[in-house]
Amino acid sequence: MRNFNYYAPTQVVFGKNKETKVGELVKKYGGTKVLLHYGGQSAIKSGLLAKVEESLKNEGIEYVKLGGVVPNPRLSLVREGLEICKKENIDFLLAVGGGSVIDSCKAISSGRYFDGDVWDLYLKKAVATQYMPIGCVLTIPAAGSEMSDGSVITNEEGWLKKDYCTDDFRPKFSIMNPELTYSLPAWQTACGAVDIMMHTMERYFSKDDDMEITDNIAEALLRTVKDEVKKVLKNPTDYSSRAQIMWAGSLAHNGLTGCGTSGDWATHNLEHELSGMWDVSHGAGLAAMWGSWARYTCKENITRFARFAVNVMGVTQNFRSAEETAEAGIVAMEQFYHSIGMPTSIPELIGKQATDKEIEEMANKCSNNGTQTIGCLKPLSKADMIAIYKMANK
Amino acid sequence: MRNFNYYAPTQVVFGKNKETKVGELVKKYGGTKVLLHYGGQSAIKSGLLAKVEESLKNEGIEYVKLGGVVPNPRLSLVREGLEICKKENIDFLLAVGGGSVIDSCKAISSGRYFDGDVWDLYLKKAVATQYMPIGCVLTIPAAGSEMSDGSVITNEEGWLKKDYCTDDFRPKFSIMNPELTYSLPAWQTACGAVDIMMHTMERYFSKDDDMEITDNIAEALLRTVKDEVKKVLKNPTDYSSRAQIMWAGSLAHNGLTGCGTSGDWATHNLEHELSGMWDVSHGAGLAAMWGSWARYTCKENITRFARFAVNVMGVTQNFRSAEETAEAGIVAMEQFYHSIGMPTSIPELIGKQATDKEIEEMANKCSNNGTQTIGCLKPLSKADMIAIYKMANK
Repeated sequence: MRNFNYYAPTQVVFGKNKETKVGELVKKYGGTKVLLHYGGQSAIKSGLLAKVEESLKNEGIEYVKLGGVVPNPRLSLVREGLEICKKENIDFLLAVGGGSVIDSCKAISSGRYFDGDVWDLYLKKAVATQYMPIGCVLTIPAAGSEMSDGSVITNEEGWLKKDYCTDDFRPKFSIMNPELTYSLPAWQTACGAVDIMMHTMERYFSKDDDMEITDNIAEALLRTVKDEVKKVLKNPTDYSSRAQIMWAGSLAHNGLTGCGTSGDWATHNLEHELSGMWDVSHGAGLAAMWGSWARYTCKENITRFARFAVNVMGVTQNFRSAEETAEAGIVAMEQFYHSIGMPTSIPELIGKQATDKEIEEMANKCSNNGTQTIGCLKPLSKADMIAIYKMANK
Repeated sequence: MRNFNYYAPTQVVFGKNKETKVGELVKKYGGTKVLLHYGGQSAIKSGLLAKVEESLKNEGIEYVKLGGVVPNPRLSLVREGLEICKKENIDFLLAVGGGSVIDSCKAISSGRYFDGDVWDLYLKKAVATQYMPIGCVLTIPAAGSEMSDGSVITNEEGWLKKDYCTDDFRPKFSIMNPELTYSLPAWQTACGAVDIMMHTMERYFSKDDDMEITDNIAEALLRTVKDEVKKVLKNPTDYSSRAQIMWAGSLAHNGLTGCGTSGDWATHNLEHELSGMWDVSHGAGLAAMWGSWARYTCKENITRFARFAVNVMGVTQNFRSAEETAEAGIVAMEQFYHSIGMPTSIPELIGKQATDKEIEEMANKCSNNGTQTIGCLKPLSKADMIAIYKMANK
């Protein structure tokens, strides 16, 4: 087992009606004047925003609202939030929404006391030393940002998408009421489930083979999400299944499933380029790429793929052939993706095949013009990336 | 899934040689003058204490040493620690040892700024409002105190054993180097494994049946410890297996395995009385009681015991009889206990049968003279307790 750090200090307040506790929690963590950050109309229409405002008022906490966060949250709105925070002496950030809203809050948090341009932090040109505290009311289980240390922001000038990670980004509290996810459409629910599973799988598929406890927990989490998402798609107001998925989303990305492992993350990198080129949903893009990545790299640790097949996908082990067991597991995963309405290829994702030129462009970006590899299980060169994109293009 | 709070803010620093980071970590969390609290000679003989002192010196951190913590840590030493802290202006507590040393630190932490008798906190007559920060260098995986909110202290006047729980007790950091557990004797290793498993099982055996993710994680953890402890007993310097057990010990008691469940804790209560009467090891006492408790209560949720049998103990399911499957699981657990040198009855634990008078006395104490029940799966009256003690007395 590799040496590791595990640090997940976020207080999770989980269950029905817990959003009414938000005022108390902001107060507990020292907030007196809040930037209430959210996305579009759904938080308003559902009445959630009004509930949150009422809870803040009940505790005598002032707030300024800033909506308009979009998927792949934008730097321009972060800058707007920073202006408000400075002008209004805001001392606490409250995210009401999913990963994009939380990531936008994290960016504002890092820029608040930083004497320079916040984008330089995401370009790793500088490091902030002081951060604003963040709290969350989560409405979309997927990104895991409600307990994670990461934030991804898109700069509209050049459409650069960059991440910044620090333990200071971990929220002080996250309120999770599964009922708030009842209204998520089937497509978004399925994309979220894929994202959650992939956060676990990126850490699971490594060359390390001596972290039994982490592997066992990862498999437990994957089986749970795989089974529960099907129930939710049949019955969107199944509280128990919504709850399992919501909690799994946090555990999949708070560090727990990576304790003692190395992690791969190549599928995420390959998908980033798909999102950049066709603005597809992250989860759907991951589903479209994973099978091809798996077939291309599985020989690097075939017993692990066989184990995944048996322990997660419920495949009957072929004791004479780890290769056949592994392949059966990949097929089963693709069947699962199809069963929840997810694509398993680029044509299924974007409705047409990618051209050779588009594949070349994606591989160029992903490999920084052939100068960088991605992934740990098998470090992938630009040529490898092209091969995988082509496998996924059939 | 029941509503829950999850809060495990402790920074875990896990791996080889990490004890040399202790000075840095104390500094990070604001410590300038430390009470270095430990147990007996083993921390000195192994050279661990010297390493810790060197690391503190390297960071310019002053410290005062206080050894002598014993299993079932005593109130008198807590009082001694409190005197030192006040006299020497100590601002940080560092535990080097197992659960007893950490629990003793927690008691000192609660008494430090409390204007009254620290024992009143454990008697729930008062609540402290300010606590000293605690850090740990763990040497015994068992109690889980390195991430938990609890502390159990024994008052020698009347030999009262009381617990006090607060999130303020959760350590700021815990350093876990599995190599530090190589020297643990087989008996203590096995007792620790039982304790870790029971922390999970007390939460697992409930009437709730809609927390798939927590159940799956609990089963993952139980399977891991069951398999790895056998490897450790064969090869005490098996790093990987020691590591799995050490990390499992923290996860079993930091709250993770109880998210959304109710918890039972009757076996712990029944064992407390065995420890009180014969000063036996906690883990061994739990092993001696569990099978009898399980047989007495399993009808309350027979499918859960059947699930445990199949998913944890690897029993082949008897599809026509959940009862037979459950019983086979209990038998398999008892065989496992025997295989690691643990008792499964009172005579195996203390070398003789308990007398009827002793059983009556234990049941009296455990039920507060017949006025209280214990457990959630099946609330146990004094008569139930006597029946279970008698089952375990054969």
